[in-house]
Amino acid sequence: MIVNMHEGFSFCIEKKVPGALGRAGVLSTPHGKIETPAFVTVGTKGTVKALTPEQVKNTGAQVVLGNTYHMYLKPGEKLVEEMGGLGHMMHWDGPTMTDSGGFQVFSLGFAFGTSVSKVAKSSETTFEGAPLEHEREREGKLAQIDEDGVTFRSYKDGSEHRFTPEKSMEIQHALGADMTFAFDECTSPTAGYEYQQEAMERTHRWAERSVKRFTELQNTRGEKSPQALFGVVQGGRFEDLRKESAETLAGMDFDGFGIGGSFVKEDMDTAVGWVSKQLPENKPRHLLGIGEPIDMIVGAEQGADLFDCVAPTRIARTGMVYTEDGRINLWNAKYVSDLQPIEEGCGCYTCQHYPRAYLAHLFRSKEMLAATLASIHNVYFLVNLMKRVRSAILEGRFADFKEQFVERYKG
Amino acid sequence: MIVNMHEGFSFCIEKKVPGALGRAGVLSTPHGKIETPAFVTVGTKGTVKALTPEQVKNTGAQVVLGNTYHMYLKPGEKLVEEMGGLGHMMHWDGPTMTDSGGFQVFSLGFAFGTSVSKVAKSSETTFEGAPLEHEREREGKLAQIDEDGVTFRSYKDGSEHRFTPEKSMEIQHALGADMTFAFDECTSPTAGYEYQQEAMERTHRWAERSVKRFTELQNTRGEKSPQALFGVVQGGRFEDLRKESAETLAGMDFDGFGIGGSFVKEDMDTAVGWVSKQLPENKPRHLLGIGEPIDMIVGAEQGADLFDCVAPTRIARTGMVYTEDGRINLWNAKYVSDLQPIEEGCGCYTCQHYPRAYLAHLFRSKEMLAATLASIHNVYFLVNLMKRVRSAILEGRFADFKEQFVERYKG
Repeated sequence: MIVNMHEGFSFCIEKKVPGALGRAGVLSTPHGKIETPAFVTVGTKGTVKALTPEQVKNTGAQVVLGNTYHMYLKPGEKLVEEMGGLGHMMHWDGPTMTDSGGFQVFSLGFAFGTSVSKVAKSSETTFEGAPLEHEREREGKLAQIDEDGVTFRSYKDGSEHRFTPEKSMEIQHALGADMTFAFDECTSPTAGYEYQQEAMERTHRWAERSVKRFTELQNTRGEKSPQALFGVVQGGRFEDLRKESAETLAGMDFDGFGIGGSFVKEDMDTAVGWVSKQLPENKPRHLLGIGEPIDMIVGAEQGADLFDCVAPTRIARTGMVYTEDGRINLWNAKYVSDLQPIEEGCGCYTCQHYPRAYLAHLFRSKEMLAATLASIHNVYFLVNLMKRVRSAILEGRFADFKEQFVERYKG
Repeated sequence: MIVNMHEGFSFCIEKKVPGALGRAGVLSTPHGKIETPAFVTVGTKGTVKALTPEQVKNTGAQVVLGNTYHMYLKPGEKLVEEMGGLGHMMHWDGPTMTDSGGFQVFSLGFAFGTSVSKVAKSSETTFEGAPLEHEREREGKLAQIDEDGVTFRSYKDGSEHRFTPEKSMEIQHALGADMTFAFDECTSPTAGYEYQQEAMERTHRWAERSVKRFTELQNTRGEKSPQALFGVVQGGRFEDLRKESAETLAGMDFDGFGIGGSFVKEDMDTAVGWVSKQLPENKPRHLLGIGEPIDMIVGAEQGADLFDCVAPTRIARTGMVYTEDGRINLWNAKYVSDLQPIEEGCGCYTCQHYPRAYLAHLFRSKEMLAATLASIHNVYFLVNLMKRVRSAILEGRFADFKEQFVERYKG
């Protein structure tokens, strides 16, 4: 079952989870294949924090996502284009994606005004760490939405900017990633039904305009590499809205779909399932901003193919690393003289070469290498977790794998 | 002309600079060969800042120096020993060195209380960035010298510690580097004759005690890798003291020599030459703490074989990088849209893959990769500069090389 998307892209489903929506597939892009389910490594500003692209590749990572909002503000999409586009600029020769910019435009008042721990906490309870309603109101003046688009202020210098669906497409065209996303409005998980519906319907109108502008740009792209466009399903925590959103977008000319917005962790399996059932089976689905181990396993079971999250590198910089038993904090006093690797048997560069005691020393000495080595381990852990999920699906033992992992892992 | 040093070590001089003291040689250690003249990369706390050991090796670096003072304080020499010694702990399989700890003990009140730019400036005007006399007095209570050793306070927590020549040898034995240094007193470049003489004579008595304790430790080392011991020549800016110091140490059982202490830049060629003439020709000489390009070229001409300095990684973190024309600052506005590499034709990883505009973006975005990429370039530049000096000596064109480099490079 192979579906050809835009020129240079195709998606092939290899095997499905019996009695569930999950599947293993291969997404082909002009810059290589992505075996799914897969964790997408985030390189917000055109670099995966603290890592060279070779270090990223050595974790087994297959694809990097850059943030449209950040690169638009700095260094600017035109300069990225002059440097050969996102992939060439950062010396990453594999597949790339850019998001729509929507999430940052709507959430920046929250996302950038809080400490790492608060953001990390929020990413555990809401999709993409989206703001709660009252926090949106408090910061309300940072972004003003109208039918045509959004006017917002830069989180860096307060300067005023405006994104429309057309502008998002133009920026993403200049950034030149393989896969791009339609411009969407990301709502709060606690927003009421009425607002969710209003925002969702606007997102659908923006989706149509995104497809139109994307198609124009592709038709006149000249020597540039072809791009694919994913639509973003919204609708909050409401089953009827999520279904309506998925159905509506399924009827448009998209190559794949993002599942976006925000709904609380407890709704993850139901909500992703509602959406997956409505979307065409043979197109890839990206669960936006989700990267917690168990969330990804649940999401994969419910039919999501791609996942991304800043958490692995962000928490790594604070000394927090994943293990099969859950996260551990390398600042803990007991690791100062611990000669074991972060995880016995882990295949990552860090665990192959360094004991916890050395990492504890690097963190306490404020050495940059601490962040690099912890980031390598965390990215490897999530990338490899999705490879294990994929193998389990291909070998028909997904349910066992999930049960064993969830039982041991303390999120 | 090969001289065998302690078991596992030898030094072979391949060619000399006609009419000068400079030479190209090969220093063999239990962990590999060092082709000299060579720049020694500094890994102060058991890591070359912002770089993995693979990144260090890929610059062409042959040897890493760790600081005894820093590793004694944290993580502690016993823990380093448990982690397999400096090299194994940091996953560097090439040759290693540790210094005596003397420089930091005497200078820490200065070296750690000032900004990067002040330290950088000081390293241009004095050996090892040593403190000026009045600054030593101001911070005088941090270190108290007596005949037996030095009592000092940790720069980190104010706790009291004591180094003696014996203690320095024991710490360096536990750290387990290939090459170690006798405990010495590092004086100010502006200290008067009388104090320089007193400190030098004490350093000579400490050198004898260092040899004695080193020999005891080597004789009972068991399975540990053999180590070599270098004596450190002192004597400040005074020709008679420098010569006396070199002569005295030449009479002791050292495998090589450090040229230490501090004398101002203008005296570099004369002072290194005074010392080289007195030292046995067939043993290696390490010009401690010197790493400015022209200083190294002058030092190599005067017979120094090894050089080390924290400058390449320290200035890299501030955005300053070496070019054939001198240092440039990547924060300069003109580099924001500059699509050239730091240096056209440079063989380093950074110049092979990234334009100045990307580096400028990384620095302005406070991305850690900025420090990594700039450090790679700077370490490569100095390592490669010494390789070029070596080739020039071997091919009999050192004088031309020096003239051309000095004419172009604006220190």
